[in-house]
Amino acid sequence: MTETHKTQASPSRRALIGWGGAGLALGAAAAGGAAAMARTGDDMDPAAAETGGAVEFHGAHQAGIATPVQDRLHFAAFDVKTDDREQFVHMLKDWTAAARRMTAGKAVGEGAYGGLAEAPPDDTGEALGLKPSRLTLTIGFGPSLFDRFGLADRRPEALVDLPRFPGDNLDRSRTGGDLCVQACADDPQVAVHAIRNLARIGFGKVAIRWSQLGFGKTSSTTPGAQTPRNLMGFKDGTRNIAGTETDRLRKFVWVGEEDGPDWMTGGSYLVARRIRMNIETWDRASLQEQEDVFGRDKREGAPVGKAKEHDEPFLKAMKPDAHVRLAHPDSNNGITILRRGYSFTDGTDGLGRLDAGLFFLAYQRDVRKGFIPLQRNLAAHDALNEYIQHVGSAVFAIPPGVRDSGDWWGRTLFSKGA
Amino acid sequence: MTETHKTQASPSRRALIGWGGAGLALGAAAAGGAAAMARTGDDMDPAAAETGGAVEFHGAHQAGIATPVQDRLHFAAFDVKTDDREQFVHMLKDWTAAARRMTAGKAVGEGAYGGLAEAPPDDTGEALGLKPSRLTLTIGFGPSLFDRFGLADRRPEALVDLPRFPGDNLDRSRTGGDLCVQACADDPQVAVHAIRNLARIGFGKVAIRWSQLGFGKTSSTTPGAQTPRNLMGFKDGTRNIAGTETDRLRKFVWVGEEDGPDWMTGGSYLVARRIRMNIETWDRASLQEQEDVFGRDKREGAPVGKAKEHDEPFLKAMKPDAHVRLAHPDSNNGITILRRGYSFTDGTDGLGRLDAGLFFLAYQRDVRKGFIPLQRNLAAHDALNEYIQHVGSAVFAIPPGVRDSGDWWGRTLFSKGA
Repeated sequence: MTETHKTQASPSRRALIGWGGAGLALGAAAAGGAAAMARTGDDMDPAAAETGGAVEFHGAHQAGIATPVQDRLHFAAFDVKTDDREQFVHMLKDWTAAARRMTAGKAVGEGAYGGLAEAPPDDTGEALGLKPSRLTLTIGFGPSLFDRFGLADRRPEALVDLPRFPGDNLDRSRTGGDLCVQACADDPQVAVHAIRNLARIGFGKVAIRWSQLGFGKTSSTTPGAQTPRNLMGFKDGTRNIAGTETDRLRKFVWVGEEDGPDWMTGGSYLVARRIRMNIETWDRASLQEQEDVFGRDKREGAPVGKAKEHDEPFLKAMKPDAHVRLAHPDSNNGITILRRGYSFTDGTDGLGRLDAGLFFLAYQRDVRKGFIPLQRNLAAHDALNEYIQHVGSAVFAIPPGVRDSGDWWGRTLFSKGA
Repeated sequence: MTETHKTQASPSRRALIGWGGAGLALGAAAAGGAAAMARTGDDMDPAAAETGGAVEFHGAHQAGIATPVQDRLHFAAFDVKTDDREQFVHMLKDWTAAARRMTAGKAVGEGAYGGLAEAPPDDTGEALGLKPSRLTLTIGFGPSLFDRFGLADRRPEALVDLPRFPGDNLDRSRTGGDLCVQACADDPQVAVHAIRNLARIGFGKVAIRWSQLGFGKTSSTTPGAQTPRNLMGFKDGTRNIAGTETDRLRKFVWVGEEDGPDWMTGGSYLVARRIRMNIETWDRASLQEQEDVFGRDKREGAPVGKAKEHDEPFLKAMKPDAHVRLAHPDSNNGITILRRGYSFTDGTDGLGRLDAGLFFLAYQRDVRKGFIPLQRNLAAHDALNEYIQHVGSAVFAIPPGVRDSGDWWGRTLFSKGA
């Protein structure tokens, strides 16, 4: 019996927290104040709200993948700075302890140095008094990590280096990384605090290679929820895998025992792409052109010729190069990925244009059967390519979840074999 | 009788919306969902919540100064690209009409081109379906604007170029600007949408010179509210001017008739400074060092020797170079400014350090009697200087509010005299 089967048979506490009352969620949102009235409502989580918004850290899978999508993101890729395996493993254990506490809304340390738990050297303090805000922390290992620490023979076959796609214009300073941590929370200060404290704990062992703030989610993993709009004004990825769809998650997202390697069972693979939108050009395109490019109407988000966002698209009604048509599983031998992307705005480029777009995050069971063939198709044909450019890229193996208070990030990779 | 007197005698609709039930606000926050439980609660506005969070655009003063501080910021400085005064004035009128609609939660256009109001060319659409989210838009005119359009003799004496302060390390690409727009909202997508649409409307007439996303407020203008923490983990600027303190606003923030020039009556002056924090260094300082630097305890935010954040500080109990002591009005001949700063995180510098800090925004009646002498004192003596660096800077004249549906941003400057 695989781990995912176990999870299905006996729902984890996380599953209960995540989904044990979706009907109530709308009521909670309706009763809320100004902040609750924002589009945070569609991924509301009533059980989490009762506990101050803590998402269970432990489980067969890491949180932050199939759990409800939070409003804000801080994503960091790290370079490893040590060749000492023991020191690195020690850091992973320290990170796990810190992540366990922070996702529960606690300060990093326990005041072990005789001071306040929220004070240096235990914590930087800026999240003191803030709620857990549904913080999830998700760790990943990049291909280059396996060049170190004698891990070469443990690199998963599915963790391939991404090929160069047509149109890629990758900035090296926003590409790659030995490690990554995805921090998602409803309060951006909570997400920023988490990454910063992991960087602080890792000082001397790792250094941030690049990081990305995402100010607004563009996906939902909540069944039936409306898809948030991206910066092109469209709902994209409306057929995302919901966190409750155990069968689709097992088929498309979670690494199974049969996939190998063993240490990845229950894990997944993450592709991160920084996609710059040429929004000034886009904003001068007509509504008809924009709707043709997506194959969707702008107001409702319905596929061409349909009435509602979640209506089944009729692909042949769309132009051959329409984004929805090209990205649809039916045009890609059934390929399906779980998306968790965020909008970003990072000031201005040197030419007076906003440096804004989509920080695309996609989880899949095998990159070779997920993002790579899908992006080959899109990069070659998508009408959207006139308005976007991929400027950053990374791929990571996402290990399975931390099982309990004695477990730690990376244990399955580091504790046996190598 | 000055405009501020009139406002005092007969509260504007904005004043009523902003403050007509501060007691209820806490109740609304407590009843809210996960998002409302975040620190948005302290500046909650129950009347605005009832209307979907619309803040009145019209008034004697521009909104976004003394009105309750929203959670998120998108700030943009623009360069003027036209020498045609009539064309520029036309753009200001178009901007005003767009701002009036967007702050009410409407799309920019009215569908005049026969299409949807939310569609191009009327609107970029990504805020469609979102609430007003307390959006405020505040315009300002930089010193360099007065070199154009025959405005030289209308430049206010108080709008001086900022001197170079000790320690300044200004990046030219994040400094200055002919115009600015401060967009504040509880939903960052609403603030980003507003700036983008103004830039789109201004295409050919203005171009964005630089912009800054602020992910979390660090100030409150709500009476008695807790001050949000900055990225150093401290509550700073706890004695901010509240939006209800009419006398202090008149004394320190609003330009009076006696100040001149006439066109600025009811306006203010804004200083914007991008303050990078060396957070990796700060995070390695001891709690004692950090508390000494601020002159405040970290957990509660109380001044040295006091119990509560809002307790009157006893300055002599602090070290001579403590930030609170040096910034206090008693150390600066009574100088008081209204702060509206936001935390930012803009990825990573080339050295693996987070590019993070405080985007400082301060409003005052006269820069020569506000920020300049205050910053001279701080730049010379503040213990905090070891951990921060000012890397961007700008100053703007903030004209008075738009009175009614026939009025427009800049009318008092452009319609008479010059």
